[in-house]
Amino acid sequence: MSLITFELNRPMDFIGLGRLCIDLNANEIHRPMEETRTFTKYVGGSPANITIAIARLGLKAGFIGRVSDDQHGRFITHYLEKEGIDTTSVTTDRSGSVTGLAFTEIKSPTDCSILMYRDNVADLKLEPGDVREEYIRQAKAIMISGTALAKSPSREAVFKAVDLARKHNVVVFFDIDYRPWTWTSRDETGIYCSLVAEKSDVILGGREEFDLLEAPFGPLRQDDRLTAERWFAHHAKIVLVKHGGDGSVAFTKDGQSFTGTTFPANVVKTFGAGDSFAGAFIYGLMNGWDIARSQQFGAASASIVVSSHSCSDAMPTAEQIQAVIDKHGSK
Amino acid sequence: MSLITFELNRPMDFIGLGRLCIDLNANEIHRPMEETRTFTKYVGGSPANITIAIARLGLKAGFIGRVSDDQHGRFITHYLEKEGIDTTSVTTDRSGSVTGLAFTEIKSPTDCSILMYRDNVADLKLEPGDVREEYIRQAKAIMISGTALAKSPSREAVFKAVDLARKHNVVVFFDIDYRPWTWTSRDETGIYCSLVAEKSDVILGGREEFDLLEAPFGPLRQDDRLTAERWFAHHAKIVLVKHGGDGSVAFTKDGQSFTGTTFPANVVKTFGAGDSFAGAFIYGLMNGWDIARSQQFGAASASIVVSSHSCSDAMPTAEQIQAVIDKHGSK
Amino acid sequence: MSLITFELNRPMDFIGLGRLCIDLNANEIHRPMEETRTFTKYVGGSPANITIAIARLGLKAGFIGRVSDDQHGRFITHYLEKEGIDTTSVTTDRSGSVTGLAFTEIKSPTDCSILMYRDNVADLKLEPGDVREEYIRQAKAIMISGTALAKSPSREAVFKAVDLARKHNVVVFFDIDYRPWTWTSRDETGIYCSLVAEKSDVILGGREEFDLLEAPFGPLRQDDRLTAERWFAHHAKIVLVKHGGDGSVAFTKDGQSFTGTTFPANVVKTFGAGDSFAGAFIYGLMNGWDIARSQQFGAASASIVVSSHSCSDAMPTAEQIQAVIDKHGSK
Amino acid sequence: MSLITFELNRPMDFIGLGRLCIDLNANEIHRPMEETRTFTKYVGGSPANITIAIARLGLKAGFIGRVSDDQHGRFITHYLEKEGIDTTSVTTDRSGSVTGLAFTEIKSPTDCSILMYRDNVADLKLEPGDVREEYIRQAKAIMISGTALAKSPSREAVFKAVDLARKHNVVVFFDIDYRPWTWTSRDETGIYCSLVAEKSDVILGGREEFDLLEAPFGPLRQDDRLTAERWFAHHAKIVLVKHGGDGSVAFTKDGQSFTGTTFPANVVKTFGAGDSFAGAFIYGLMNGWDIARSQQFGAASASIVVSSHSCSDAMPTAEQIQAVIDKHGSK
Repeated sequence: MSLITFELNRPMDFIGLGRLCIDLNANEIHRPMEETRTFTKYVGGSPANITIAIARLGLKAGFIGRVSDDQHGRFITHYLEKEGIDTTSVTTDRSGSVTGLAFTEIKSPTDCSILMYRDNVADLKLEPGDVREEYIRQAKAIMISGTALAKSPSREAVFKAVDLARKHNVVVFFDIDYRPWTWTSRDETGIYCSLVAEKSDVILGGREEFDLLEAPFGPLRQDDRLTAERWFAHHAKIVLVKHGGDGSVAFTKDGQSFTGTTFPANVVKTFGAGDSFAGAFIYGLMNGWDIARSQQFGAASASIVVSSHSCSDAMPTAEQIQAVIDKHGSK
Repeated sequence: MSLITFELNRPMDFIGLGRLCIDLNANEIHRPMEETRTFTKYVGGSPANITIAIARLGLKAGFIGRVSDDQHGRFITHYLEKEGIDTTSVTTDRSGSVTGLAFTEIKSPTDCSILMYRDNVADLKLEPGDVREEYIRQAKAIMISGTALAKSPSREAVFKAVDLARKHNVVVFFDIDYRPWTWTSRDETGIYCSLVAEKSDVILGGREEFDLLEAPFGPLRQDDRLTAERWFAHHAKIVLVKHGGDGSVAFTKDGQSFTGTTFPANVVKTFGAGDSFAGAFIYGLMNGWDIARSQQFGAASASIVVSSHSCSDAMPTAEQIQAVIDKHGSK
Repeated sequence: MSLITFELNRPMDFIGLGRLCIDLNANEIHRPMEETRTFTKYVGGSPANITIAIARLGLKAGFIGRVSDDQHGRFITHYLEKEGIDTTSVTTDRSGSVTGLAFTEIKSPTDCSILMYRDNVADLKLEPGDVREEYIRQAKAIMISGTALAKSPSREAVFKAVDLARKHNVVVFFDIDYRPWTWTSRDETGIYCSLVAEKSDVILGGREEFDLLEAPFGPLRQDDRLTAERWFAHHAKIVLVKHGGDGSVAFTKDGQSFTGTTFPANVVKTFGAGDSFAGAFIYGLMNGWDIARSQQFGAASASIVVSSHSCSDAMPTAEQIQAVIDKHGSK
Repeated sequence: MSLITFELNRPMDFIGLGRLCIDLNANEIHRPMEETRTFTKYVGGSPANITIAIARLGLKAGFIGRVSDDQHGRFITHYLEKEGIDTTSVTTDRSGSVTGLAFTEIKSPTDCSILMYRDNVADLKLEPGDVREEYIRQAKAIMISGTALAKSPSREAVFKAVDLARKHNVVVFFDIDYRPWTWTSRDETGIYCSLVAEKSDVILGGREEFDLLEAPFGPLRQDDRLTAERWFAHHAKIVLVKHGGDGSVAFTKDGQSFTGTTFPANVVKTFGAGDSFAGAFIYGLMNGWDIARSQQFGAASASIVVSSHSCSDAMPTAEQIQAVIDKHGSK
């Protein structure tokens, strides 16, 4: 019996909610950005990337978000549509906001950084009124990015979406996705992310991200199993702790744990590893695969994305992922 | 067996959290405030009033809040201390904030209004760091005023306090206490108050306040019993719906309901009726009284306060309340 | 020949521009405000006080300002009207602003302090659109309070008013009236007040206020005569440096200077001394009196106001001022 | 005798003040930006462009401005240094600001638009303290961009710079450079730009820009000569009204006027026309050329820049400009 039950008779498999941004990746890699001169534009933002990953894998996906009322906003919406993602809940913000930008600098495979533009961004203008009950209840799963909690009114829109999802038995995935920009304090992050984690079925995050959620409420224990148990006391069924290059550990409410590893890769940059993992892992769970196989699928997907120049554009198909697994053998 | 169990071996009975303000009541009543010339100063703010009510009734009370670093802030702290309320968790805000003010205008017993000063107020500067686990866990009960959710960082401080209270088995009272000032939208109010209501043991509010909590998540049903059941599905044991001059109805998780009435009064103004009711009602519950007796005690207390010029200063002793009940007979 | 020429054929003598506030004076004097319980309400704010002073002296005065859309705003407008001041350019602000408040604490004649409420105040919402050319050009003189420069859009409204005044030969009085609240930095104060001082005919301020204007542009010289010459290089004809209890020195563009003294008073508090001086001094100039006589009239007026509990309410008539001069002899 | 006298014994010819930004020009031209994928990065912002133009022409230039504390800020500073521009008054802003961005879209030579990022930009964080008297007094001329007046504290820094320039006989050029972003209202723009125009020796702007300056103070007359006379009543000696493709008209305080024309160009985009004109025109005046020759030099420079893909990078040398004039004949 599966840990998580998806309502199979629903037309939409998956809804992403949160950040729709633009990545401007320096074309000249292995040098400081102050010396680069040209950039290529991609759709970016963790929930956008994960939703694109899932659509490439063949699931029917949609998105709840806001884009700016300009060329960048239109670029994003067109891109999602081209990928077959439903954009009927992607609203154009008319308040004069801009699209969030991430200029990426790749000095070396292990020395990458991002220059962010996060002031007055459209994605954080998402309002509770943009979250429609009829949209959510026709989906099997929804994924919340913690960054969407960074500011009002997007924060309130998230709480509304999570409550409607619970009300209609839509499986809630929560990717903590902590980015220090925009948040006022670490306490604020921990408190709001905890409120969503309590209502989530599956929680994904790094060790430091889970610590952030525990910090306001007592001394840190920094133990993956204790972390998982904290959330099992609420609604969680699966808690997955990511350890970067060291793989991941998934805990399930029935007391099991699964250690996932990584696949070899010719690493260009580490951006996108987590998003491609998440997309393929969720795809596995929604296919009814067991945890271990889903983790492996996620890891193989990540190995493809870190080997390429972009994130969203590089999201692989199921065949491409399977080819990696076949080549390297199951991990 | 009681619906609610208080940890009896704790030194502090009750903690109030939220607004500490000043009421400036026009001395010349029954005329428009533009024609009045003198004002008398009182401590005000719903959670302050309730905590003062409870201290007057003989319980050991404390407060978690912030006051301004000026004469008004010192006046409030001195007043609480004089009432025997513990102020070790009342912090002086050093950010240049001011004390919230409420100028009250009493044109007639039924035509009262308030002119509020709520910009840059000290009470909403309460931070998660002001909420100390060791303070909360030594108390039997805590009361959250919904107004403390109106703005960050006070909003985050509330969520931290509620989680620590649940962690340590401190009974959580939640008074919705909706005031339109400061809130950005009704959706925002409904969403955050719902998050606290879900974690509360006892919820007090008017019909319109409960509607506000339900509005973001579906069509309004405006039925007291359905409202109560909504919250019983979470942690609530008692839901009390106030109907102003028509009394109140208390629902309990075991399916019972109790209709409370009001006592005759020579009404000067209606301000303070809810706070005095809440203080005496909570006092009753903490004494182990049944719901009906607690409601009656609350109603008798309210009849005293609406007959006087102030709120906080007029909070009665248990003897004074009992005298009203004895005079008019149990209701 | 007079230094300053007023256009005599104009219907309005004087326009005040800027702050319209409320003073809440503790009735119990000679004790800290945290121990006082009752307050009396008066119209306050330096330009309001000066305009009231001038109206009491019998000149035809008007005001350009904004008041809050509440009982306090109405109280102010009614008070001005009762004093015979034209309020057709007093606009009611509909943005949800409040009236600025000054709670005054009088511990002793020499130890007075003010607790200010200056967040979101109506007076600083004055907009350029509120300043009408046809209103200004029918007046002989206008007085700008430096506090009206503390924030936009009031700051822009001042610049517009000053330019229209110069265009129509309306004499510009500038009272530096420095209050640290609201200003972001001392540089900001100095820079904007200097821009107005350059366009003013008569400038009034204390030594420290004039220093503030000079500070951004070079080392301080702190010499009254050099200060006066700085402004004579622009449009100023009279520069009056106030020295508190030591009187004042007025410099004129033709190279003269006049030292004014003070009158004995039974001082209750020092608030209002400067405003009453300014009102009576301007009245003298507008009557065509020489500088010395105007200074003396101002000083006598100040001696009356510091002996009373209020500022605006205590502004004397010409007869009352003359009686002081007659009693103590010319100074 | 020249209209304008430069203090010849000063080591620095010219200081630019204001915006230091980045242009991201779509490489794929003649299509909507939502369809372009790559961008090339250039230093941008009108005062940056003009200063670069002047440095290319061989004058000794410096800049007063703020850049962001990141790769974009360093790119700008390095670029200026490479061009031989003194950056000792270019400050790195540590407040978490970003570099302003202009994404340029070139659909056709006559259909160009800009997508601006102007929230929390470093250039508007310029403070009065960044403007040093010793830096200004060693220069012959300074140029103020009106955009630097759009927000505090940059606005105050401009007023300080202009006053120090006047104090030390540094010629003040004022380029109105109106951009609607950032300004709160058209009144605000007109009022602050007027305050600087009054103190400027040479004013450059389009007809609509001059209208903007006149609008708050009376009915528009929209007459170039009346406009010029307005400013001649203050400190202006030259007022140049730009008419886009129809050339420009320069008025001088001695009553003359000079009509300038344009040179033929293979127009790629119109961006940068005004900046290249201004740079070469100012260069002419500083060389002691007459107005007409300076206008011609400006127009020839503009014809070169509009024919290329960038603004700053395309600024020509004096030889390149002369070659255009020689080819087409004097206009």
